[in-house]
Amino acid sequence: MTKTGYNVKTIEWQNDEVVMIDQRILPLEETYIHHRTWQEVADSIKTMAIRGAPAIGVAAAMGMALAAMQSPAATYEELKEDLDKAARGLYETRPTAYNLGWALGQQARIYEKEGDPGQIRQRLKQRSQEILDEDVAMCVAMGEHGAPLFPEGACILTHCNAGALATGGYGTALGVIRSVFKRDKNIKVYVDETRPFLQGARLTAWELGQEGIPYCLITDNMSGYFFKKGEIDAVVVGSDRIAANGDVANKIGTYTVSVLAKAHGVPFYVAAPTSTVDLSLPDGDHIPIEEREPAEVTRFRDCECAAPGTPVCNPAFDVTPHENVTAIITEAGVHREPYAESLAAAKKGK
Amino acid sequence: MTKTGYNVKTIEWQNDEVVMIDQRILPLEETYIHHRTWQEVADSIKTMAIRGAPAIGVAAAMGMALAAMQSPAATYEELKEDLDKAARGLYETRPTAYNLGWALGQQARIYEKEGDPGQIRQRLKQRSQEILDEDVAMCVAMGEHGAPLFPEGACILTHCNAGALATGGYGTALGVIRSVFKRDKNIKVYVDETRPFLQGARLTAWELGQEGIPYCLITDNMSGYFFKKGEIDAVVVGSDRIAANGDVANKIGTYTVSVLAKAHGVPFYVAAPTSTVDLSLPDGDHIPIEEREPAEVTRFRDCECAAPGTPVCNPAFDVTPHENVTAIITEAGVHREPYAESLAAAKKGK
Repeated sequence: MTKTGYNVKTIEWQNDEVVMIDQRILPLEETYIHHRTWQEVADSIKTMAIRGAPAIGVAAAMGMALAAMQSPAATYEELKEDLDKAARGLYETRPTAYNLGWALGQQARIYEKEGDPGQIRQRLKQRSQEILDEDVAMCVAMGEHGAPLFPEGACILTHCNAGALATGGYGTALGVIRSVFKRDKNIKVYVDETRPFLQGARLTAWELGQEGIPYCLITDNMSGYFFKKGEIDAVVVGSDRIAANGDVANKIGTYTVSVLAKAHGVPFYVAAPTSTVDLSLPDGDHIPIEEREPAEVTRFRDCECAAPGTPVCNPAFDVTPHENVTAIITEAGVHREPYAESLAAAKKGK
Repeated sequence: MTKTGYNVKTIEWQNDEVVMIDQRILPLEETYIHHRTWQEVADSIKTMAIRGAPAIGVAAAMGMALAAMQSPAATYEELKEDLDKAARGLYETRPTAYNLGWALGQQARIYEKEGDPGQIRQRLKQRSQEILDEDVAMCVAMGEHGAPLFPEGACILTHCNAGALATGGYGTALGVIRSVFKRDKNIKVYVDETRPFLQGARLTAWELGQEGIPYCLITDNMSGYFFKKGEIDAVVVGSDRIAANGDVANKIGTYTVSVLAKAHGVPFYVAAPTSTVDLSLPDGDHIPIEEREPAEVTRFRDCECAAPGTPVCNPAFDVTPHENVTAIITEAGVHREPYAESLAAAKKGK
């Protein structure tokens, strides 16, 4: 696979197959899944073989290209019917990631205008590759914009995985950290393990290890201890959807980190491409929050950790209000309050 | 075993053996460990087969009685030498729990005055049983004092396990919840799973299930989400050591919960016997914080959850400053700021 990460590979075309690293079993095994149908891609999104809003967007775009290849349609009308069905199926996989709908919208632009089925098939595949390439380029731009925000020898806390694995490559929050590390080898990263799915312990720790960036893995409930000791200089996280006013949906636990950062006077940064910004939502109260199955909480991989039948809540995301966000880093630059203006301008500039 | 819990049994004498439920493998298996030597007891404390400051105190007291029985000493001097050695060994098992040193001090009062070895052996065993019985009585008293603090139909968050399993029986924080439930069946408890050792998921959830108290298990990073939604009316936790000024050491993650409670205007209560209060320490900065082994964070039971060699921090406790504590509930009553006065008075009253 091409190196997108730089050392981590997330998703790519191999001939007419979409190949993804299986993020459910990392870091213990490095296994690649080959997808020939959009239904297989939908299943990989739903079961979190691939996750992270930008990566989900890329996967959905590639899923649409697979749907076009699968379709035996000879006419435009038949092809459009098959593609609409695939788009609905892909859209319903996960409700919070805004990039999913954005990427499907990008593909819809191609096939909603009547055209030759063969050409549409080709252009959907081509556009999905562009979305991947643009995503990596946007991450690198975020890194460049974000890096100067961090003091020398910074201890940086991150939550979940907003790395190469969550994107086409390089990463959003972790992309910023990569860029900081390029200019300053004395940084250290605190990695929240990020229960229940352990994206921090399994994916972020693994990515940082691959790059040789110094880090320390902690459980989610430990960051308060290090904030209080003055050992955290800045926080940077990704996002699954950002409302027009700068409210940020991200992995469950992000809100708690933002409250701790505010209480300790530590800057809290969000790194995400403008395709994550949803100007149609006035604020975070309107962002749909996915509730996932109880077994993610009661089990730890194959290990039961609570009694059978334990009642569980499992919201997969929370919303950090814009008051808790010091700045939002996109490929367009560093945006601050009032976000309603700065984010709208960033989107318009695209 | 006698019902101390009421439905949960933690530790007791069976003839000349100290029998404990193995809290490392609860709730999947209910296994009891029989201890014939103080070294076995020390090992059970160190490896957390028994945990929770009050329960550790009871175990240490019983360990001293076992040490006396083990000792072949015919003279007082020989016996005292063996007991001093056992006291040192037991004391070194865990640094944060104040009740450990307190219980050893209770036993020292007996054997530090010269006396008949046979009588000393008998009185050490007798005193350890008294410490257990007093502990349960203190927990019930805490429940009575604490219950009126909670509004009708309260949603109560608790962290770690401060239940029957953490004490001689009934529990400190969970004892308060038991007492609230006796008068109000409409309460609900949010249970933090409490990584890395999962005392919430494994022990608190199990205890609440045994009592039929409605609860919902969440990962530690989810409580912020429920605070923000206004779904948490009060927090109650236990403590491993309380400094003279009311700073509270408790399981890692407690400090974060206290910051969240304060940010949302939710009362934060601590329930602990006065034997947890260490008047010799002016504030929480002086409380020793145990650092436990990395494998607790990178593994769960037999499951690896991070790459081999992952760098880890694993502080087992944190300190919640007294400003974040609404009230401290002991067997003597409900204490508020200024804690330096109210706690000293409570200790003196004993």
